[in-house]
Amino acid sequence: VSHVQSLVTLTTDFGAGSFYVAAMKGVLLSGAPEARLIDLSHTIPPQDLRFTAFFLARCLPYFPTGSIHVVVVDPGVGTDRSILHIEAEGRHLIAPDNGCWCLAVEQWTDRPQVRRLTESTLWQPTVSATFHGRDIFAPVAVYLARGGAPEALGSPVTGWIRLALPAPTLGPDRLTGEVVFVDPFGNLLTNIPGEAFLAMTARDGRVRIGGTEVARVVRTYGEAEPGAVVALVSSSGCLEVAVTQGNAARTLAAGIGTAVEVVPLPARP
Amino acid sequence: VSHVQSLVTLTTDFGAGSFYVAAMKGVLLSGAPEARLIDLSHTIPPQDLRFTAFFLARCLPYFPTGSIHVVVVDPGVGTDRSILHIEAEGRHLIAPDNGCWCLAVEQWTDRPQVRRLTESTLWQPTVSATFHGRDIFAPVAVYLARGGAPEALGSPVTGWIRLALPAPTLGPDRLTGEVVFVDPFGNLLTNIPGEAFLAMTARDGRVRIGGTEVARVVRTYGEAEPGAVVALVSSSGCLEVAVTQGNAARTLAAGIGTAVEVVPLPARP
Amino acid sequence: VSHVQSLVTLTTDFGAGSFYVAAMKGVLLSGAPEARLIDLSHTIPPQDLRFTAFFLARCLPYFPTGSIHVVVVDPGVGTDRSILHIEAEGRHLIAPDNGCWCLAVEQWTDRPQVRRLTESTLWQPTVSATFHGRDIFAPVAVYLARGGAPEALGSPVTGWIRLALPAPTLGPDRLTGEVVFVDPFGNLLTNIPGEAFLAMTARDGRVRIGGTEVARVVRTYGEAEPGAVVALVSSSGCLEVAVTQGNAARTLAAGIGTAVEVVPLPARP
Repeated sequence: VSHVQSLVTLTTDFGAGSFYVAAMKGVLLSGAPEARLIDLSHTIPPQDLRFTAFFLARCLPYFPTGSIHVVVVDPGVGTDRSILHIEAEGRHLIAPDNGCWCLAVEQWTDRPQVRRLTESTLWQPTVSATFHGRDIFAPVAVYLARGGAPEALGSPVTGWIRLALPAPTLGPDRLTGEVVFVDPFGNLLTNIPGEAFLAMTARDGRVRIGGTEVARVVRTYGEAEPGAVVALVSSSGCLEVAVTQGNAARTLAAGIGTAVEVVPLPARP
Repeated sequence: VSHVQSLVTLTTDFGAGSFYVAAMKGVLLSGAPEARLIDLSHTIPPQDLRFTAFFLARCLPYFPTGSIHVVVVDPGVGTDRSILHIEAEGRHLIAPDNGCWCLAVEQWTDRPQVRRLTESTLWQPTVSATFHGRDIFAPVAVYLARGGAPEALGSPVTGWIRLALPAPTLGPDRLTGEVVFVDPFGNLLTNIPGEAFLAMTARDGRVRIGGTEVARVVRTYGEAEPGAVVALVSSSGCLEVAVTQGNAARTLAAGIGTAVEVVPLPARP
Repeated sequence: VSHVQSLVTLTTDFGAGSFYVAAMKGVLLSGAPEARLIDLSHTIPPQDLRFTAFFLARCLPYFPTGSIHVVVVDPGVGTDRSILHIEAEGRHLIAPDNGCWCLAVEQWTDRPQVRRLTESTLWQPTVSATFHGRDIFAPVAVYLARGGAPEALGSPVTGWIRLALPAPTLGPDRLTGEVVFVDPFGNLLTNIPGEAFLAMTARDGRVRIGGTEVARVVRTYGEAEPGAVVALVSSSGCLEVAVTQGNAARTLAAGIGTAVEVVPLPARP
């Protein structure tokens, strides 16, 4: 049967090793003993929807068709916010209606099938007001992992909340954007596309972050001496600012929102 | 055979990503290659038995019959403390005789079957003095995962160590208790039952924590404005104090042991 | 088929819950849906090759024949450093040519079979300059997990980089070494063999760490009162300095590189 060994991934802000994650795993394995649980992250910064959006966009595309992705970053738990089931290119997501899932899904399609979870007979018999991960998300994942049809989950919806994500300004002579993600090494990922950055630096453009000019454009960290501040195209295709064998976020006192520019070489006096 | 795909959970204070956990996983998978390992937590605060008790009580009930739960929070490792096998409602626990497992098991039964592990032929050939997780707990879990009978592990015992856990005082006009657990969001879980709290606040009772009066009783975090200090029934059924979209432990400088009261509305002058 | 349920372990410095780990898991499960992924650690200190060497040496020996161990601690990513496939006693490792794997493999054999990965048709179609974990390591693990022959990965090599690891000096009257690893409890693991230490302390030798004399030699932590600084043979067979129910690294302000000696009892005046 196809539901044997369904793949269920978990992304939460519950904290590594928290009992909330453990309880969800118990519900999942009680209901779908053959499902394969894969931890993606439990260290999403609490209630940080933008971080979640970038996180999911950078990893979900690598998972196979049929995967079930459970996303519980849910500051509105227990209010009248909806919980959604999203189907896109054979992938399933279960996520709150807070926009955190859109960026990932847009990589597959502009027209996902989205349903609002309303069929409460599929949930835990008693639903708490504050832990829908255990009481709604996990039972719905069990239902899907066992081959249940999404149609029974609730009615299709055509509108949902989108996150306002910062957009770069890509002019012919100047690219302006900001840091949108800091990775665990302190590398600064920006919203400036890698190709635009490369095209401009090929014409002597310079990268500036905060007030600092980045000394070198490289292909990979190890091309510069330890401690050098470098600009490169990240593995996810955007302009990245890094410090070779160091931590750019700390060295440059930069973080999410720090302004980044690619500008022409200043005219010499 | 039923032992194929036995479910083995791991709860330790070894630290996420520590080589102690990795070595245990190696022993488990070498002996029971088909077992399914599920990490519950490796970030139990070092040697904190009370934390372990609350952690296990809040997640083990959701796991299915037949699960094997390995718990290595073991300040007495290598001394003459016993290691126990506990069977309750078809669940198996392997835990030190330090009381950390009792609260969870009491949710299933008052009369668990408890054995003291003595059959050393089932252990690693050489047992270190300081790492029984690898040398005793994991091999015994392998034995059970492969369908071994608990009777062979050692003799039944009828006495074991219990933790002294703080008990609330539930008077007709006043509930007195304390914070017993801080979750990863900084929410403060107390030992005051949710129903008693609701009954009293329905009659205009007020919640006080440390010296502070909690402004609002809510059903879920999102009912109050960001930053509000709120009281609610937690997803595990107790009185919880939280800060909407914030961290109550930090805001209130509160933690395990902080006094919590539900008291009558003060008489107006 | 034997590749069903291949065991693939992951050891990285990507950070627990980072999207780099999640993306690797996606590639692995897309290519080898039946593989069993086991997280060993994602909290290796960034780019710390020596830590990685000790970590792997302490846990890999417990894993079964046929295991595939993926190790991505790779400060040289994207430079001309090689990526190696190492086969030893039926175990497979995929690791950068930076020496981090040697200590573990030497426990099995002096003559591992080592290949340099060059067969790029087995990799992701496009290889980024900075994320070979996703683009090379994971696809090669998929190939092996599906039963692929190592011969196709690349040509054998007979030379590779070795780490300079600190060696102890073991004289007849004095053992001199250093702390080489700090575990999550703050216990200090040294490079002095446990047997040499026991032999000398049996003859009234004393242990000194930094400037401090260690009060007691014990078999296990719980033999001394809480707070005592003790010396013992660690579960991995070396001299360890610990504080009972405490954190020796903090108490002694010691860490990797701190000098440790076992010396004769001072002559009494």
